[in-house]
Amino acid sequence: MTNSEKALQLHKKWNGKIDITPKCKVDSREALALAYTPGVAEPCKEIAKDKECAYTYTIKSDTIAVVSDGSAVLGLGNIGAEAAMPVMEGKAVLFKEFGGINAFPICLDTQDTEEIIKTIVNIAPAFGGINLEDISAPRCFEIETRLKELLDIPVFHDDQHGTAIVVLSGIINSLKVVNKKKEDCKVVVNGAGSAGIAISKLLLLYGFPHITLCDKAGILSEDTPGLNWAQQEVTKVTNLEKKTGTLADALDGADIFVGVSAPGIVTEQMVASMNRDAILFAMANPVPEIMPDAAKRAGARIVGTGRSDFPNQVNNVVAFPGIFKGVLEGRGSQITEEMKLAAAAAIASLVPDDKLNEDNIMPEAFDPRVTDIVSAAVKAHIKK
Amino acid sequence: MTNSEKALQLHKKWNGKIDITPKCKVDSREALALAYTPGVAEPCKEIAKDKECAYTYTIKSDTIAVVSDGSAVLGLGNIGAEAAMPVMEGKAVLFKEFGGINAFPICLDTQDTEEIIKTIVNIAPAFGGINLEDISAPRCFEIETRLKELLDIPVFHDDQHGTAIVVLSGIINSLKVVNKKKEDCKVVVNGAGSAGIAISKLLLLYGFPHITLCDKAGILSEDTPGLNWAQQEVTKVTNLEKKTGTLADALDGADIFVGVSAPGIVTEQMVASMNRDAILFAMANPVPEIMPDAAKRAGARIVGTGRSDFPNQVNNVVAFPGIFKGVLEGRGSQITEEMKLAAAAAIASLVPDDKLNEDNIMPEAFDPRVTDIVSAAVKAHIKK
Repeated sequence: MTNSEKALQLHKKWNGKIDITPKCKVDSREALALAYTPGVAEPCKEIAKDKECAYTYTIKSDTIAVVSDGSAVLGLGNIGAEAAMPVMEGKAVLFKEFGGINAFPICLDTQDTEEIIKTIVNIAPAFGGINLEDISAPRCFEIETRLKELLDIPVFHDDQHGTAIVVLSGIINSLKVVNKKKEDCKVVVNGAGSAGIAISKLLLLYGFPHITLCDKAGILSEDTPGLNWAQQEVTKVTNLEKKTGTLADALDGADIFVGVSAPGIVTEQMVASMNRDAILFAMANPVPEIMPDAAKRAGARIVGTGRSDFPNQVNNVVAFPGIFKGVLEGRGSQITEEMKLAAAAAIASLVPDDKLNEDNIMPEAFDPRVTDIVSAAVKAHIKK
Repeated sequence: MTNSEKALQLHKKWNGKIDITPKCKVDSREALALAYTPGVAEPCKEIAKDKECAYTYTIKSDTIAVVSDGSAVLGLGNIGAEAAMPVMEGKAVLFKEFGGINAFPICLDTQDTEEIIKTIVNIAPAFGGINLEDISAPRCFEIETRLKELLDIPVFHDDQHGTAIVVLSGIINSLKVVNKKKEDCKVVVNGAGSAGIAISKLLLLYGFPHITLCDKAGILSEDTPGLNWAQQEVTKVTNLEKKTGTLADALDGADIFVGVSAPGIVTEQMVASMNRDAILFAMANPVPEIMPDAAKRAGARIVGTGRSDFPNQVNNVVAFPGIFKGVLEGRGSQITEEMKLAAAAAIASLVPDDKLNEDNIMPEAFDPRVTDIVSAAVKAHIKK
């Protein structure tokens, strides 16, 4: 059986991947009278008096929604709400398995920004947090920003921030291996969608002064025609030298390449033109921007990809479960920039200096320490 | 410990009453690659090609939403979304325990009819059905009707139809005990909210020709001032003799009383004025319109209540799990009037003639046969 067939079989076997299960048995009149009427009126009354009690008497304290409109699903594009469900169910599985968090998939039958925002606000009372997923740029930026203003529970777009956090953690460790300082590094990010923009912003915040963002049209600058508002915004703080040209031009003399773009678009020649000890995170899925062996051949020192069959897998699963675990347990109302930086540092810290090398810059996805260290880092930055 | 304290403790113990649990373990790279990327792309692509495949590869086939706006919760009134959660979680527990159905509670932070409709339509793709709950009248009627038009999955307002079905099943058996024909019976329904109106309509459909609907103002007729549109509609098909007066006037000579109103508003005198072998379903919670012993003393032959500590408990739990089980398993797109009548007959059939008596007209809530017989009855009426 091929892996595709195995995947279909897995999804067919039980019709999907998650179950909703009672925490309490209702197998007697007495049990029914406590979990349902008349007993259930008691917690209702407590919450009606003080909404905070929802965290005590309902699932709100450890339950989040995984929300997508199906507009930018994996590498599949705009496949719609129903077709996005297997991914959102999968994410719900990962939240539980890696973070002990209850996550329920909500796939929206609308791709209108205002309607998405309104719908999420309307369903928010049951949830302790909102994880946005696979919503296309630039709508995803507005949706997240507006929801953060409107809701008093944490909102997190994993495609942006989860990816950015894990990339940053990999870069933190890579710099130790190659013995370079962030201040001296030129970074090229290719792919000016949700992940690329979020990565650029987080790397800037971390302290990389020189970031060049590229897209299909080449190097982006304030003068590039046809940019959306989110891209325009980021060009104000990137490419400060106002370079123009292609991705190849951008990579000439660069120290770090971060690709969230398309298979095979980085050539060996481009890698060879980079600075010594080049670091590449080629995360196009399933085929990276350049294959690790080709990049190494061309002189790259460190190569990370999204794949589990090469070293240095960049996998969001080391970030999002711990981030939500921390913010839920600590009852934070937002996931802040400080938390993202702290999470990246925490992930990086799991590879001790004596184990750190070109092929071991990231903790394993299944490293049992990851969730707790990320969760603790996030919790430490909750302001009360 | 009092029952109230026990109920609070139960809800506090695990923070709420439901968990979301993976059906598959993700404990290896291989498992991760099937349940999440890259394997998950396969079911996504199948569903993108044909939305019907959502029933095969996602939770849609056995998962419903339990949706409330918190506007009419139990006897507590308009307590809002957060405070309604314990009831909706409880309902989700009952759906699973009694019907094997995954139900997720959605409590809405809006009480605007249009926004409620839009929100439910927007979140519908994940779900195989929508159970509306504790939404105040007359908005509940419009919300249900409009959703039935807009969605291709079953929509069911349990406060209306669940209650109506169970009352009808009790009345079917009561008529056998007292040996009366529906055509000859005068029925008085007191309480012109969602349940009272739905009960009146279902009893009419079943074939009771004489139904009088009362509310605080007394007997309702087309000329009664201040009725909402749903009440106006039902007065066109009830009270055909155009009676006026109080509840006491309505009960004079009546055969059946159905109360979904307020504690203690039916007096022994009123019961004494009813026809011989009077049947009363006094379902105000937690204190009925008249206590069973008082009703019996005044001449009633059969008394049902909402309580489990008296005989003949009218409990929706004998209806809604089987109804959704049937319509989901049979992939019905609507819960029709025929299904409701069939469900009521199926519930009634569980008390065999030789066991039928004044104090045994309803199957027990925990009768293990209930869900399957109701489910089969519903399935038999699915039109393909």
